[in-house]
Amino acid sequence: MACRPQLTPVLRRLARTTSELSRQAPRPQVLSLTRTAAAAGSRSLGSSQPRPFQHTPARRKDGDDFTSIKYPELKRDGRFGRLTLDHVAHFRSLLGDSNSALIDGVANAEAAADDLEPFNSDWMRKYRGHTQLVLKPASTTEVSQILKYCNDNMLAVVPQGGNTGLVGGSVPVFDEIVLSMSRMSQILEFDDVSGTLVAEAGCILEVADQYLAARGYIFPLDLGAKGSCHLGGNLSTNAGGLRLLRYGSLHGTVLGIEAVLPDGTVVDDLSRLRKNNTGYDLKQLFIGAEGTIGVITKVSIQCPQRPAAQNVAFFGLESYEHAQRAFREAKGQLSEILSAFELMDEGSQALVHRVTGSKRPLESTHPFYCLIETSGSNADHDSEKLSAFLESVMDKGIVADGTLAQDETQLRALWAWREGITEALGHLGGVFKYDVSIPLAQMYQLVEDTRARVAEAGLLGDDADGTHPVRAVVGYGHMGDSNLHLNISTRRFDPRIEKVLEPFVYEWIAQRQGSISAEHGLGLAKKKYIGYSRSEGMVGLMKQIKGLYDPRGIMNPYKYI
Amino acid sequence: MACRPQLTPVLRRLARTTSELSRQAPRPQVLSLTRTAAAAGSRSLGSSQPRPFQHTPARRKDGDDFTSIKYPELKRDGRFGRLTLDHVAHFRSLLGDSNSALIDGVANAEAAADDLEPFNSDWMRKYRGHTQLVLKPASTTEVSQILKYCNDNMLAVVPQGGNTGLVGGSVPVFDEIVLSMSRMSQILEFDDVSGTLVAEAGCILEVADQYLAARGYIFPLDLGAKGSCHLGGNLSTNAGGLRLLRYGSLHGTVLGIEAVLPDGTVVDDLSRLRKNNTGYDLKQLFIGAEGTIGVITKVSIQCPQRPAAQNVAFFGLESYEHAQRAFREAKGQLSEILSAFELMDEGSQALVHRVTGSKRPLESTHPFYCLIETSGSNADHDSEKLSAFLESVMDKGIVADGTLAQDETQLRALWAWREGITEALGHLGGVFKYDVSIPLAQMYQLVEDTRARVAEAGLLGDDADGTHPVRAVVGYGHMGDSNLHLNISTRRFDPRIEKVLEPFVYEWIAQRQGSISAEHGLGLAKKKYIGYSRSEGMVGLMKQIKGLYDPRGIMNPYKYI
Repeated sequence: MACRPQLTPVLRRLARTTSELSRQAPRPQVLSLTRTAAAAGSRSLGSSQPRPFQHTPARRKDGDDFTSIKYPELKRDGRFGRLTLDHVAHFRSLLGDSNSALIDGVANAEAAADDLEPFNSDWMRKYRGHTQLVLKPASTTEVSQILKYCNDNMLAVVPQGGNTGLVGGSVPVFDEIVLSMSRMSQILEFDDVSGTLVAEAGCILEVADQYLAARGYIFPLDLGAKGSCHLGGNLSTNAGGLRLLRYGSLHGTVLGIEAVLPDGTVVDDLSRLRKNNTGYDLKQLFIGAEGTIGVITKVSIQCPQRPAAQNVAFFGLESYEHAQRAFREAKGQLSEILSAFELMDEGSQALVHRVTGSKRPLESTHPFYCLIETSGSNADHDSEKLSAFLESVMDKGIVADGTLAQDETQLRALWAWREGITEALGHLGGVFKYDVSIPLAQMYQLVEDTRARVAEAGLLGDDADGTHPVRAVVGYGHMGDSNLHLNISTRRFDPRIEKVLEPFVYEWIAQRQGSISAEHGLGLAKKKYIGYSRSEGMVGLMKQIKGLYDPRGIMNPYKYI
Repeated sequence: MACRPQLTPVLRRLARTTSELSRQAPRPQVLSLTRTAAAAGSRSLGSSQPRPFQHTPARRKDGDDFTSIKYPELKRDGRFGRLTLDHVAHFRSLLGDSNSALIDGVANAEAAADDLEPFNSDWMRKYRGHTQLVLKPASTTEVSQILKYCNDNMLAVVPQGGNTGLVGGSVPVFDEIVLSMSRMSQILEFDDVSGTLVAEAGCILEVADQYLAARGYIFPLDLGAKGSCHLGGNLSTNAGGLRLLRYGSLHGTVLGIEAVLPDGTVVDDLSRLRKNNTGYDLKQLFIGAEGTIGVITKVSIQCPQRPAAQNVAFFGLESYEHAQRAFREAKGQLSEILSAFELMDEGSQALVHRVTGSKRPLESTHPFYCLIETSGSNADHDSEKLSAFLESVMDKGIVADGTLAQDETQLRALWAWREGITEALGHLGGVFKYDVSIPLAQMYQLVEDTRARVAEAGLLGDDADGTHPVRAVVGYGHMGDSNLHLNISTRRFDPRIEKVLEPFVYEWIAQRQGSISAEHGLGLAKKKYIGYSRSEGMVGLMKQIKGLYDPRGIMNPYKYI
């Protein structure tokens, strides 16, 4: 039997948090990754928030960063009415006169510009619309009255939750009315025997989770933007996040919704029951519909007990084949306590190391690393299982080296090597980002094939002679969910890069029946690429559903399908 | 602190299996609970198969047990065509001339009667149709050709899987063509890293589970009829079963389907990916649609690792309030290993005892009993957790007495006290059965209120003077899923009983926002009661979906909504 490597102790140095990593980082090219405080309000974007394609320049005063200018092929749909003072007066009569209910830029665009701006722009500053009116209903009835009026008057509407999306789905393109759900933020019910939570759609994810934490429960979804994102937005985008491996998708955990259709019809499907086989499960259509067929107003969801113990291990592997074997062993041995299995390649870790200067978790480098997290009800049992697992995979030669976090600080430090990748890449320059799902056996091959292609085109390498705009092609992601983040780190803008990458990446994914959007949705960004993941027939059937619920097409136009 | 009761050792006597229980049972009134071998084929109905309302007499030769005769208010829809020899010739040209592909009663009804019978009747013998033609396609293309032809010619179709349903959804009412999926039974793919299984819809659940067992995986659904039921039928009825508490609903575990619409369109949504946010999740509409908008032809599903260890505990409690507290403690302490939490009242256990004569698991009787099962990857850890849990709930006075199975035999014996209820009730006479879901806090109240109502009507009691047709009103079920089985055990037919029970039970459920069908679906049996669980608006929206996909109404008519 081969000599078994020793577990490397986690060093104190690793105790730095992600925010410390950021502070220490050299910033060769500062990109506007976070919005200004004024624009973002109380928004806090955690380091685990994935960031998509980032060649977006900092916000320009002259306004040529409007979506309508950046994407000249998009044309305003002439069937939509233009907002008038009469329309605004009607909305005031519905919602009351307070500024908390309505932001009016129709009467005086200049005066309202600053107030409207956060609703017109996404946090990446990639998309910027021209809305002149934000409506903030406080009840389902108000949502219904608004939509019915908009439908009758052909006024286009963009539903907006926390506006933390990554594909431009929650901001207007032209002058669509923004329907902000921010005032419908209450937790309505919690059954502490069954774990069923009922809340309004505008409830912030972190608020819901903290409410549940105080009662020994956990929200079955977690993601970096939890401090800002709304439950309604989570459902509308079918958010996946960090807990999917453990708690499954929202299609399984959501028990009911209340939603409003464009014609004002209230879909009263707010079941609190785990089992209810009485007819078509219509609520499922609204999960992942990105506000294109109606607006979710209330949510009922099954919440699991909060785990008492968490452990994290980090290890190095000699090949992607080894990583797959490790994943299989982890599923078998850790089974019910496995809550994350994350993959990082050496390229991604080298970049984090370069940016942070932190000592790496393992003493030697390896082509691949995995981070395993367990969550369970008994800390001793979980530690024992995780140690036994690590010993076993080392004995079998699957894992080359590994380390176990000894406390909460070390646990966070190990997570920083996974969660810090996005941050590090951002600090180094522009990034082409693809959030994709590919059958596990072939998943990493996409990174290798892309790297080879970029190298072949003469774009990848060191930049001694100034001819290599691409620094690195790296891959990492949620291995447990077959969800890869392919990232191409660039030094400067070069039109050749995009030509080499697209449609190559999408075609590669399509050939393997993968998904061009694993968890971020379609929005405006991926509308035109849906054909790479869905057949013409399926897109046709989807358009049928759109036509059924939104025959006049007022809901979130220019996006999705 | 109160004196803690001792754990009662499980006695050897308890080692009898359910089938032994059945053999010993006195049979005061033998009901036809299982179909004849000829009719049932290889069907095996496990003891955990719930059995609905059972006043159905044994099958009559003269044929007045046809659904059309028993329910004279049902009228054949005159828009549907009558089958002709030309139709049959066309189907032969599509499927080939073999009897394995087609059972033809059009040319000679008498000769085909025996072969058609199993497709015309459900296993309870409650429903019986008049089909003259069974088609058994072998491919999706054949399904598509059949449906398109039926749609063009206005021929009504009943899709049929294992025909193990409980609400008459899978057998014809009149002369609808039966589309049997039994020849599309192959397992197509299994990815032993991700756990994704792809199979044809006619694959039998147990076959799939055994295939997975050999590879260390488990199908995320289990139910008594697993030896006969098809995956396609499981999805079409959104089957819940025994593993829902642990693995969640099919809406979360199913990754993709292939289905055929009535006009022959193939819905190619057979994703193998856990994450795929590219458009409306249309497959969800087919999960629980009971074959009314199309036929599921293939299934892709996420399968978990098979647990290495299982444990079972059985305990007595002094009130339903105590049972709720025990459930909450179990969720907290057993958390990730809890795989079943079943509730039985003393009435139900007394009936099992009366029928089987077995020594009861605990030395004293209690108003309620719970059965807890754990499934995990480490037997020692699980036992330790379960013992600690039992000690803790006894210390807190939540549980009055309890016992732990020491081996597989004892484990099965304890399960028999839960699974044997249906069998025991069946042996004692007729049973009115309601499979309902009610918010947990109020769940058992339905049993108490029903019992009081039946007693008040003078129907409940011993039968010394021949005036009490109702023996007992009992309740049991999947407490972990808020799923109650309310059973009214009767000695003989008495028209007063049904009048006392209905619509009382449905109204009671409706007032508490419960579901009149937790896991069995609507079929023919509950079509007329949907209004108790769904608003008029929701039923209207469902009818819209039906109209969208099946505008000519040929799919599974007379049922569902």
